[in-house]
Amino acid sequence: MIPDIVLFHIGQLATLAGHCDTPKTGDTLQELSIIEDGAVAIKDGQIVLVGTTKEVISRLSEEPLLPPIEFPDMLAIPGFVDSHTHLVFGGSRENDFAMKLAGKRYIEILEAGGGILNTLGATRAATQDELSSNAFSYAEGMLSSGTTTIEAKSGYGLDVENEVKILRAVEVLRDKLPSEFVSTFMGAHAVPPEYKDGVDRYVNLVIDEMIPVVAEHGLAEFCDVFCEEGVFGIEHSREILTAAKDKGMKLKVHADEIVQLGGAGLAAELGAISADHLLMSSDDDLEAMGKAGTIATLLPGTAFSLDTEYADARKMIEMGLPVALATDFNPNCANESMFFTIALACYKMKMHPREAISAATINGAHALGRGDVLGSIEPGKRADILILDCPNPEYLSWRFGVNLVHTVVVNGQVLHTKLGP
Amino acid sequence: MIPDIVLFHIGQLATLAGHCDTPKTGDTLQELSIIEDGAVAIKDGQIVLVGTTKEVISRLSEEPLLPPIEFPDMLAIPGFVDSHTHLVFGGSRENDFAMKLAGKRYIEILEAGGGILNTLGATRAATQDELSSNAFSYAEGMLSSGTTTIEAKSGYGLDVENEVKILRAVEVLRDKLPSEFVSTFMGAHAVPPEYKDGVDRYVNLVIDEMIPVVAEHGLAEFCDVFCEEGVFGIEHSREILTAAKDKGMKLKVHADEIVQLGGAGLAAELGAISADHLLMSSDDDLEAMGKAGTIATLLPGTAFSLDTEYADARKMIEMGLPVALATDFNPNCANESMFFTIALACYKMKMHPREAISAATINGAHALGRGDVLGSIEPGKRADILILDCPNPEYLSWRFGVNLVHTVVVNGQVLHTKLGP
Repeated sequence: MIPDIVLFHIGQLATLAGHCDTPKTGDTLQELSIIEDGAVAIKDGQIVLVGTTKEVISRLSEEPLLPPIEFPDMLAIPGFVDSHTHLVFGGSRENDFAMKLAGKRYIEILEAGGGILNTLGATRAATQDELSSNAFSYAEGMLSSGTTTIEAKSGYGLDVENEVKILRAVEVLRDKLPSEFVSTFMGAHAVPPEYKDGVDRYVNLVIDEMIPVVAEHGLAEFCDVFCEEGVFGIEHSREILTAAKDKGMKLKVHADEIVQLGGAGLAAELGAISADHLLMSSDDDLEAMGKAGTIATLLPGTAFSLDTEYADARKMIEMGLPVALATDFNPNCANESMFFTIALACYKMKMHPREAISAATINGAHALGRGDVLGSIEPGKRADILILDCPNPEYLSWRFGVNLVHTVVVNGQVLHTKLGP
Repeated sequence: MIPDIVLFHIGQLATLAGHCDTPKTGDTLQELSIIEDGAVAIKDGQIVLVGTTKEVISRLSEEPLLPPIEFPDMLAIPGFVDSHTHLVFGGSRENDFAMKLAGKRYIEILEAGGGILNTLGATRAATQDELSSNAFSYAEGMLSSGTTTIEAKSGYGLDVENEVKILRAVEVLRDKLPSEFVSTFMGAHAVPPEYKDGVDRYVNLVIDEMIPVVAEHGLAEFCDVFCEEGVFGIEHSREILTAAKDKGMKLKVHADEIVQLGGAGLAAELGAISADHLLMSSDDDLEAMGKAGTIATLLPGTAFSLDTEYADARKMIEMGLPVALATDFNPNCANESMFFTIALACYKMKMHPREAISAATINGAHALGRGDVLGSIEPGKRADILILDCPNPEYLSWRFGVNLVHTVVVNGQVLHTKLGP
């Protein structure tokens, strides 16, 4: 076997190995399975050998195709898996910022016709190419910041045609960037103004028309619902998610972000892969999630931008819940950096840097049903590896909020960041 | 006149012109003097022409030496001026992070022998080359994030030899990077353990030995003091700052960060260029600063990392104080990004994005006594210009906390950021 690429003499290689079957919980969140002076051999975009430099070199029967690359004093971790983004939308939302500066909450901006409705109009007005081109620039920024897997939700079209347009725009990205994209249908992201007085009718549209079309054309692997007071209640959410499940889609839920509505409990009841946000969830619902194996995906960037409290990560970790971290990149929280997210997780939610790394990689992969193929540095997995200007995991939080990526390996491609002429 | 470089068709060119004499205050903080479809011509590292693309092209008598570079749909602003950093130190401080996670305050970490004393040992043990090499990597990161002028304080040596070593390490950086460096002597950053029971003796050492050596060799333009309960009180601070002023040094004060000690009032009394931190300052002292023309330099990164309240930027702006923003990059707040700082200023201190841009550029330049040569895009100034992947100033806060730099022009050199093979 002749590898294409060998990375070696990596100061600390945090493989996060051994958690392909189920996400990490409790104390194992801190275990990064670090190999000192580590090496990785890559062939055809896959990891083929992992070990100490000595081990890997002794197991190479022939020279790799390219000269080995050395990374002394650096930390390697799996590529970040951003398991919750609203990547595709029209326009931008800087004009809402004045409302935020005046202290308005998200729900107030929404009620004032701003927020998601503003983006709804811009998204409907955009062509698929325009949407794809906007999303490309965000996804490229994510890749520069080390995110090699991106979940992308629809939900700014809110009719059959425009929801399909968004999901097709994600498909285009797959051909343009080496990042892995995972599509989620979220027609139930908001009630569009034309159904303002007929939520039942909109729910029927989602169930009877959108979900069948999305399923038939294989446009999304997941279905998500914004289960929240004033948006979709528990009953509507259950109906939509059940319909999607019946069509073979996996489930996610925007749960208990603003009020304690019980979305986390619903996610557990329906066997959702993840429930996301969870600022207001009851302990009973969190316990139900634990029993169901539903991942708690925390989105501290949203709390930062909306100036709310942060989700209680420590409580969830102590309850034994699997915790993932994601950006929630969206027009209301337009930060695509997992480094920023990790900084918030450590400084504001008191997660240990090692816990944050697990949550941002292997547990993110599990939150996308891809724990077996992504999210750790193990033979057989996709070669998504970050080499960081950073000697150890704690340093990653010490140098908080900056992009420490020296080199991104994505699907076996080696990309460097540089400032130059 | 043949320019070296012409940047043209810049979507929005925020020149921040017209504030070379005094820093911006009040409503003028929001005025960015934007030229639509702007252009800049540069020669020998200086800005020579600024105007609309049409104006600048009509005034060129000959072709520039290099092909003009076009930046449609982008925003150009002056290079960031980071007027408060502790750039040069030995070691790193990730191991203190566990204490932070346990909720310890800075002063508690200090009392436990961590914090600054930890860094003191590492700095004293380091060679000048080692210090310079560490600082180089941080300064390079700053440049990648758009910071073209960096103030760098001593203060981790705390004896004559090691304070001089730090300031000489800054001098080396001047030859290695095109960024502008401004040196500040801060022997009064902490009381070293060997003077724990003799603060008076340490103050005498600073006044009688350190300041004369620093002044004689022209090693620092500014003198700064950590005026704080348990560190240097008002009287000691006054003595040190007065001695430095007598030797021709300009003054800065770390004022009222943790308790209301009156550092802001002292800064005003002594005519300091800036007083920095200001979380606890009294209204009387802030008013005195306003009368004295002392700039209020706010450091929200520190509040973020120490989990304290933020300084009351809105009150200071409404009082008519000139406000500058800086990172306070140091082993206790190792974030070098002015974008992160601006995000905190907008989201947590409720500064308008335009105010934050003024505070991070022209007012930062004034806080370094360089308002006449830096901090805005005007003929005769140093050619330090950022071209951002950003169509307007508000967008800069909408896409919060990420590095939006497309191209950095520093002292007339054009550098691009890229992710590539």
